[in-house]
Amino acid sequence: MNVAVIGLGLIGGSLLRALAADGHRVTGYDAGAETREAARAQARSSGSTDAWRVADSIAEAVADTEVAVLAVPLPAIPGVLAGLGGYPGLITDVTSVKGPVRNLIGDRRFVGGHPMAGKESSGFAAGDPRLFDGCAWVLCLEPGDTDPADWLALARLFTRLGARVVPVTAAEHDRAVAGISHVPHLLAAALSGVLAGNPLAGTLAAGSFRDGTRVAATRPELIAAMCGGNAPAVRQVLAAVIDDLASFARELELDDPIAALTAGLRPSSELRRAWPPRPGEPVEVPADVEALLALGRAGGWVSAIKDGKVMGLRPETDRNGS
Amino acid sequence: MNVAVIGLGLIGGSLLRALAADGHRVTGYDAGAETREAARAQARSSGSTDAWRVADSIAEAVADTEVAVLAVPLPAIPGVLAGLGGYPGLITDVTSVKGPVRNLIGDRRFVGGHPMAGKESSGFAAGDPRLFDGCAWVLCLEPGDTDPADWLALARLFTRLGARVVPVTAAEHDRAVAGISHVPHLLAAALSGVLAGNPLAGTLAAGSFRDGTRVAATRPELIAAMCGGNAPAVRQVLAAVIDDLASFARELELDDPIAALTAGLRPSSELRRAWPPRPGEPVEVPADVEALLALGRAGGWVSAIKDGKVMGLRPETDRNGS
Repeated sequence: MNVAVIGLGLIGGSLLRALAADGHRVTGYDAGAETREAARAQARSSGSTDAWRVADSIAEAVADTEVAVLAVPLPAIPGVLAGLGGYPGLITDVTSVKGPVRNLIGDRRFVGGHPMAGKESSGFAAGDPRLFDGCAWVLCLEPGDTDPADWLALARLFTRLGARVVPVTAAEHDRAVAGISHVPHLLAAALSGVLAGNPLAGTLAAGSFRDGTRVAATRPELIAAMCGGNAPAVRQVLAAVIDDLASFARELELDDPIAALTAGLRPSSELRRAWPPRPGEPVEVPADVEALLALGRAGGWVSAIKDGKVMGLRPETDRNGS
Repeated sequence: MNVAVIGLGLIGGSLLRALAADGHRVTGYDAGAETREAARAQARSSGSTDAWRVADSIAEAVADTEVAVLAVPLPAIPGVLAGLGGYPGLITDVTSVKGPVRNLIGDRRFVGGHPMAGKESSGFAAGDPRLFDGCAWVLCLEPGDTDPADWLALARLFTRLGARVVPVTAAEHDRAVAGISHVPHLLAAALSGVLAGNPLAGTLAAGSFRDGTRVAATRPELIAAMCGGNAPAVRQVLAAVIDDLASFARELELDDPIAALTAGLRPSSELRRAWPPRPGEPVEVPADVEALLALGRAGGWVSAIKDGKVMGLRPETDRNGS
């Protein structure tokens, strides 16, 4: 396919390399002149068989392409959409909230995406063509809105890079990532607060504190942008977590606190021990919206699209609390 | 010194080896006949220069010793105290709550202890004479109650094994470990609950979920015993954590949630980035109760006792929120 990648940071830069290595004709663009030059230099040094082009404008980058991947942060999306003008191709993105992006897109041909990939370092130089191998890549599917052919074209593109393509609605995605990514940052922050005015606690703290607070060292601006961009879902999950903690506190006031708390902790302990889920055998999935969404809701994903057949996997047993 | 170690699990078994290697005359005892036999077999195989004796009763183990270390879980303490009869030596323990043990001890010669050491495996076979090297070892110091000479004798014994001996009261200890060890298990459990009925969340979950929930896989009975044995302090810290989470939820409802949450997260982010504290240079600390407790409250510890001088370290700068 002819694909444009707009934004050449860690995700965009990795995607440029991965799609080129998979034999696609790829054109990249970045708002930063230095990043464009770095991407051009690497294309020259990597030889002609799997190299990519780098354009000097969004319009030049997307000319004659079938797919444009917007690999820029949420605040940069409106500017890129303006640069796309009347682009007739399929648009996807890689941002970590899906409802807000959908609201910005209007009635363009669009399938929202979110690869759950990352690493400590960032920028084009940190890019890695194998970054998506084995990672979950959410592709949004909205009944009555998304064109299934568009969705399947992107699923084919990304499964070939090794990604597990997860079909969900934008709302389901935003609620799930509130629980597994955004709220964990708030819990880590609250737990770090136990050090306030208590240097003794800092000296005694070891493994359970270290792991439980690791992501609290993230810059507060980044945590706030992540949670604030998904505020309704984050508030909902946070309220449920606070309820659970208040239950534990009540159990500790009962006559037999140890028995009460043991019973109260058992469900979450079983959920955690069953995680991560083990994938079962690949099965063919009907290529219709409801069947795909049912696969995603069951914790499954599309692993390959071959000869028009959609192959999917779901967790081996129903150990995940559903 | 002549030292008895009662209970030869991971901590007791490691201490038996470490004290013997440091040249002390050590006698071990365990309620399990198989454990006693394993400890005897290892003593025989390790040669005569650093071997230990293994007794067949508590009375035999403590005969002619100056110190008895109770390395048994809290529920086993009353039975061991009965076995000690009128033992005139100094008693210490290694359990993870200090107030409840103090209540069981009565008016015996006692200094409560808690080495912050552990590993995945347990039992005598998992013991390691270097387990305490670099670990924090709390030794309780109660003004008007603890004999400073007894405290210093134990501090000398354990600093020679590489431990950082932290002087605190039982109440200060119990509040600190509620924050850095007990409540983290409850937060991990509550966070694991986001998987309930949501297999999609389990498929998307990655690093921040994995680390934030790691200790939730602990057996619920163990978490409940830990928290239930320290219920007043755990409830107090849990209430403060719930308050912080409720503040974050309120900030997410404001007109500019990102600015409000950024400000709300900043203190905990700074606390976490300043952790762990870096030790400064060793300084001599007056060997009196108040000076030692002030050292512990400042996040410091006793690193050595040489020629009657108590050497202490405290965090390099006051970066720990005090």
